[in-house]
Amino acid sequence: MVDTIGYAAKHSFSRLKPFRFEREEPKPNEVLIDVLYCGVCHSDIHQVKNEWSNTVYPCVPGHEVVGRVSKAATNGKYKVGDIVGVGCMVDSCQSCAPCKEGDENYCEGPNGFLATYNGPFIPAQMASTGENMYGRDNTYGGYSSNIVCREEFVIGIPDALKPEEAAPILCAGVTTFSPMKHWGVKAGDKVGVIGLGGLGHMAVKLAKALGAEVTVFTTSEDKKADAEKLGATHVNIEKDVAKKAEKLAAMPGTFDFIISTVPEKHDINPFIALLKRDRTLVIVGALEPMAGVDNSQVAFHRRSVAGSLIGSIAETQEVIDFCAEHGIAPEIEVIPIQDINKAMKKVENRDARFRYVIDMASLGSEEADAE
Amino acid sequence: MVDTIGYAAKHSFSRLKPFRFEREEPKPNEVLIDVLYCGVCHSDIHQVKNEWSNTVYPCVPGHEVVGRVSKAATNGKYKVGDIVGVGCMVDSCQSCAPCKEGDENYCEGPNGFLATYNGPFIPAQMASTGENMYGRDNTYGGYSSNIVCREEFVIGIPDALKPEEAAPILCAGVTTFSPMKHWGVKAGDKVGVIGLGGLGHMAVKLAKALGAEVTVFTTSEDKKADAEKLGATHVNIEKDVAKKAEKLAAMPGTFDFIISTVPEKHDINPFIALLKRDRTLVIVGALEPMAGVDNSQVAFHRRSVAGSLIGSIAETQEVIDFCAEHGIAPEIEVIPIQDINKAMKKVENRDARFRYVIDMASLGSEEADAE
Repeated sequence: MVDTIGYAAKHSFSRLKPFRFEREEPKPNEVLIDVLYCGVCHSDIHQVKNEWSNTVYPCVPGHEVVGRVSKAATNGKYKVGDIVGVGCMVDSCQSCAPCKEGDENYCEGPNGFLATYNGPFIPAQMASTGENMYGRDNTYGGYSSNIVCREEFVIGIPDALKPEEAAPILCAGVTTFSPMKHWGVKAGDKVGVIGLGGLGHMAVKLAKALGAEVTVFTTSEDKKADAEKLGATHVNIEKDVAKKAEKLAAMPGTFDFIISTVPEKHDINPFIALLKRDRTLVIVGALEPMAGVDNSQVAFHRRSVAGSLIGSIAETQEVIDFCAEHGIAPEIEVIPIQDINKAMKKVENRDARFRYVIDMASLGSEEADAE
Repeated sequence: MVDTIGYAAKHSFSRLKPFRFEREEPKPNEVLIDVLYCGVCHSDIHQVKNEWSNTVYPCVPGHEVVGRVSKAATNGKYKVGDIVGVGCMVDSCQSCAPCKEGDENYCEGPNGFLATYNGPFIPAQMASTGENMYGRDNTYGGYSSNIVCREEFVIGIPDALKPEEAAPILCAGVTTFSPMKHWGVKAGDKVGVIGLGGLGHMAVKLAKALGAEVTVFTTSEDKKADAEKLGATHVNIEKDVAKKAEKLAAMPGTFDFIISTVPEKHDINPFIALLKRDRTLVIVGALEPMAGVDNSQVAFHRRSVAGSLIGSIAETQEVIDFCAEHGIAPEIEVIPIQDINKAMKKVENRDARFRYVIDMASLGSEEADAE
């Protein structure tokens, strides 16, 4: 067993606290990684607070992990000492159609993909037996001293990227990059980004690097300068719903692609009207029931409203390499893990600019509860 | 001016009554048609009752029109005496991108396409001046003795189709055919049809003829035998919402395409879960705000929810020819126009099997109000 210390939530209204636990020894096809940095994703907060009603406690969050290989896989491509990343998945069934086609993030195996934390997914019909193909009760994420990951799910981090800056690309980056690639965002396209947080700010940078003209929609007045600095050509700021509708009505049917990164239920109707015919608005921020959509807005221009979930392993490597190549890095603030609860509060209050990344070196001589 | 008699609603809660009016003389590029038959579409009811809040009264509905050319266009392809059809459009701007690409049903001209009745569309910014490119205040539909239509929008009706059976194909047929073609329904696909009314029953016949295996979802227990006769392999009948959810949960991720033909707000969440990865549920029946969609169902398999509006002129001709070729005809009940109010009531009560078609020969010696 691998002795590990991390930060965990014990229940849905607890703060994260030091937590000592043991990870199983890595199997021959798995890599053990000493965590250097871990990004703080809004879904860590949803999960800690059980806002998706599926959290298993104790919950050690973290799926934007960069670290150093401390035990390599047998005949693996990563060597001890390599700087590598782990995103939202550490394994998948590898035998369903999506897995075979390289879409592990849409794994249709009986337990879905194995999430980096709070995995595996146990569907209702398996819940009584606890049956799961991964043989693990729960996974613990990257808010910890080390992590174990199937080698095929480990991402190589090029020297051109600082490890702390690479971390948020592993979720925020790929979650916005994957749908842009899937729906064919290209140079000259007009792209709308709704919400300017961790995901949104990466969406702006990536869309810009793909050659698109980017418009940011945000309700935070103080994010205008930020949005422009990130690469947005237009920034549409409006808190007042009626005024917002009026502003948006002035530019109907002009967007090739819109991505909503807002991490909670919201009204996408005013944005649907901005799409050109046959184009798609994709929701990546919220995994919950949305406000009702007016089908007249959708049908009259054969528009689509889609959802997209993180990205594949190949896409994760692709966006990491794309960022290295284009000199793209997330805007981060490095924090010691002792500040995690304060940082999460700031994320909830929309005060983050734009991603907190935990420096795991701060995880020193914690007095931790044992497992 | 062309002297015309039709049936009109005078206000949102009136019954349809005889109405005498004059149509403008057809222009050189327009065709004058003596109406033989006109289908009764659920949208005629929405429009008569002003359920889309845009009805101009008096309202003469009807956009599933088959008749005989009584005055041809100059150098036109249709001759006096030809049996022809008019669907939901009688003109469009012909200069916007969709029009140029043959998608007149998505016309982006300042007044949109010219609807067969209750047209043209006057957007808010034009409403004060009444400005519209078609130079017409209102259009009157096919519940009348004759109709005028731009020649390019006239559909040829092959001899193999009875005129009264061709009529519903012009809206119900193309509205379900167009999205099936657009999203690539092909032989072997599993297609779901939600709702078994005028549109739904055509969707079943057309999907079946395209080689798909069809499942019908209906809340009407007495439609099972009908659904099977129409070509459905499976019929899923359940009024009870909880039981429905349970039944549907047993077949997740198995459909290639789902089309909802329900003509009112409804919950599509249980159906989204039935789609395979990367597939689309398209809503054609309801032009209104829908029940909120749970994005976790959408995102986890990168599904899409789309809308589609009738079909292009080329697609209308294609589906007419497809029906002639495959021996497909809607299930109709021919009624005299004097029964129109009773028939509309039956449509609202889901008692139609499956399309009422008005025999315009019944429009005889009506005592009609003048315009």
